[in-house]
Amino acid sequence: MPRRLIILTDGYHDSHTAKTAINVIRYKPEDVVAVLDRQAAGKTCQELLGVGGNLPVVARIEDAPQANALLIGIAPPGGKIPPPWRPIVLEAIARGLDVISGLHDFLGDDPEFVAAARKSGAKLVDVRKNDEHDVAQCQGIREGCLRIHTVANDCSLGKMVASVEVARGLSRRGVDAKFVATGQTGILIEGDGCPIDRVISDFVNGAAEKLVLANQHHEVIVVEGQGSLFHPRYSGVTFGLLHGCAPDGLILCYEMGRTTIYGMEWIPLAPLDWVRRFYEEAASIRHPCRVIGVAINGGKFSDAEVDAERDRVRTWLGLPACDVLRHGPDELVDAVLDLKRQLKK
Amino acid sequence: MPRRLIILTDGYHDSHTAKTAINVIRYKPEDVVAVLDRQAAGKTCQELLGVGGNLPVVARIEDAPQANALLIGIAPPGGKIPPPWRPIVLEAIARGLDVISGLHDFLGDDPEFVAAARKSGAKLVDVRKNDEHDVAQCQGIREGCLRIHTVANDCSLGKMVASVEVARGLSRRGVDAKFVATGQTGILIEGDGCPIDRVISDFVNGAAEKLVLANQHHEVIVVEGQGSLFHPRYSGVTFGLLHGCAPDGLILCYEMGRTTIYGMEWIPLAPLDWVRRFYEEAASIRHPCRVIGVAINGGKFSDAEVDAERDRVRTWLGLPACDVLRHGPDELVDAVLDLKRQLKK
Repeated sequence: MPRRLIILTDGYHDSHTAKTAINVIRYKPEDVVAVLDRQAAGKTCQELLGVGGNLPVVARIEDAPQANALLIGIAPPGGKIPPPWRPIVLEAIARGLDVISGLHDFLGDDPEFVAAARKSGAKLVDVRKNDEHDVAQCQGIREGCLRIHTVANDCSLGKMVASVEVARGLSRRGVDAKFVATGQTGILIEGDGCPIDRVISDFVNGAAEKLVLANQHHEVIVVEGQGSLFHPRYSGVTFGLLHGCAPDGLILCYEMGRTTIYGMEWIPLAPLDWVRRFYEEAASIRHPCRVIGVAINGGKFSDAEVDAERDRVRTWLGLPACDVLRHGPDELVDAVLDLKRQLKK
Repeated sequence: MPRRLIILTDGYHDSHTAKTAINVIRYKPEDVVAVLDRQAAGKTCQELLGVGGNLPVVARIEDAPQANALLIGIAPPGGKIPPPWRPIVLEAIARGLDVISGLHDFLGDDPEFVAAARKSGAKLVDVRKNDEHDVAQCQGIREGCLRIHTVANDCSLGKMVASVEVARGLSRRGVDAKFVATGQTGILIEGDGCPIDRVISDFVNGAAEKLVLANQHHEVIVVEGQGSLFHPRYSGVTFGLLHGCAPDGLILCYEMGRTTIYGMEWIPLAPLDWVRRFYEEAASIRHPCRVIGVAINGGKFSDAEVDAERDRVRTWLGLPACDVLRHGPDELVDAVLDLKRQLKK
């Protein structure tokens, strides 16, 4: 039975906090029947979240009777379920809806949720759950598989979107390309992947390598980045993923207008040229790797402002640059194809 | 009741594979009554492992009747218990000995071990078990606490030994210094710490930061390094730890004669000056940090050879350098005290 999702975002609707909701709606709209937000009921999804067109925002689960699963639509730092959401989750379970969560706190570890699910027959799906227990082997990756990896100066600014758009752009050009998901939202969109930030740290590099090995039959894989080497919370995840997926080329992502680390406004963001240089050095510890293009998230700015920024960055860094949602990903797709030719892959 | 350990190393006796055994014997000899190695029974511990003097090596648990706990003395990559060891562990449990393990595979998850322990009343102690679930906050570290961190070009080459020796050396000079353990062996020696490589990757930086916060009342803390930014298996752990403990100074450790990555002889080691520069840049993303000295592991070479190497490294890198086990840690202790004065901590 296909999933028909009602997405719980109750009270969270900006591009950071409601990231999971927004991107599942953006890339899997056919799976979504409504968004649940008690304060915004009656609006359209487009009005509330900026995506989803006329998809309705409802106040109660019963207002979306065709739904058969409730998706927790947020991914806060630390990944805990907001306490006011418990009654909503319990009601969904009681109504027999499966509940899907990408939080660090697993539904399946919550005795109340488990008891309720046992009673109603609902399934509890924890997307971040994994049993990765293998260290990296650093061998056996098919030479011909071109590996592109999205990286950034901060977390939560569009690495996943850039990865999906570039992979889809490559496919439109007839390339056998695959988006390789490494986070809960990407996994929900793609249907496979590994929740890399939930893997035991000793096995992070190994889990990333396994993702590459599992997808190396494709011509090009675009491995979704996580966090940032410059984010003091998540930099371990980012570095392990970077080394484990052993990329040939990087796409550097950033958000226009952001000047400090997300959630830590007392820490200024490093300049992009420093960020670029550090990533290139970090990625080249084993084999050469360089940044081949820049993905600008200009969501908060006008077309003219983003175009001016695009020109500035192209000149400053000497790299192709675009806002994949505004300009389309073609300039980055060209850069990937150039690298493919250069490396004869 | 104090622990009287019999340490199981059966068949493993070099400085890599028997690392846990060797270092517990080196730094907690008063806790150890014997080593169990069926092929080497009758030897002394010194003959078998190069430490421990006349401590006996025995073939059977019953040959060390004063033991009240069995310590698994190895820490292999991936951390699984060798299958031939199962009967020994089961016998120990049946005799009522507690079993202490730092492996990734937890004793407490093994139904056979759990059932046997329930029967005999023995305790199963998994040193790597943890429940770290907090992201780093990057705030609140006491300015006056000097943080030193040991780093390396590879794993398993003496970062823990250098950390313990420097912390003890500082204490001998009257400084309130603390060795902060981040791995199973260090935790067994120090009695506290966090098994950082077993923490969920999203919480690695946070767990490292918590260790600093818990120990920041000391004048100087020496935080044990893990893995290497240059080791393709463990680099995620290393980077998260580096950022989480936010060091003021680094001690760069390496092993003389090693030319390739441990366990991956097809990957050459990077030159020390590159390693040094990359660590300094990685550690300085938030605040300045530099390498203040070099710890040489010259275990496989003669005094004359190590002395020549020491001179070479001092000149090449312009840094104090010593083999802490051969020369004592004084030169590195001086470097820490210099940094303390420079930073007015």
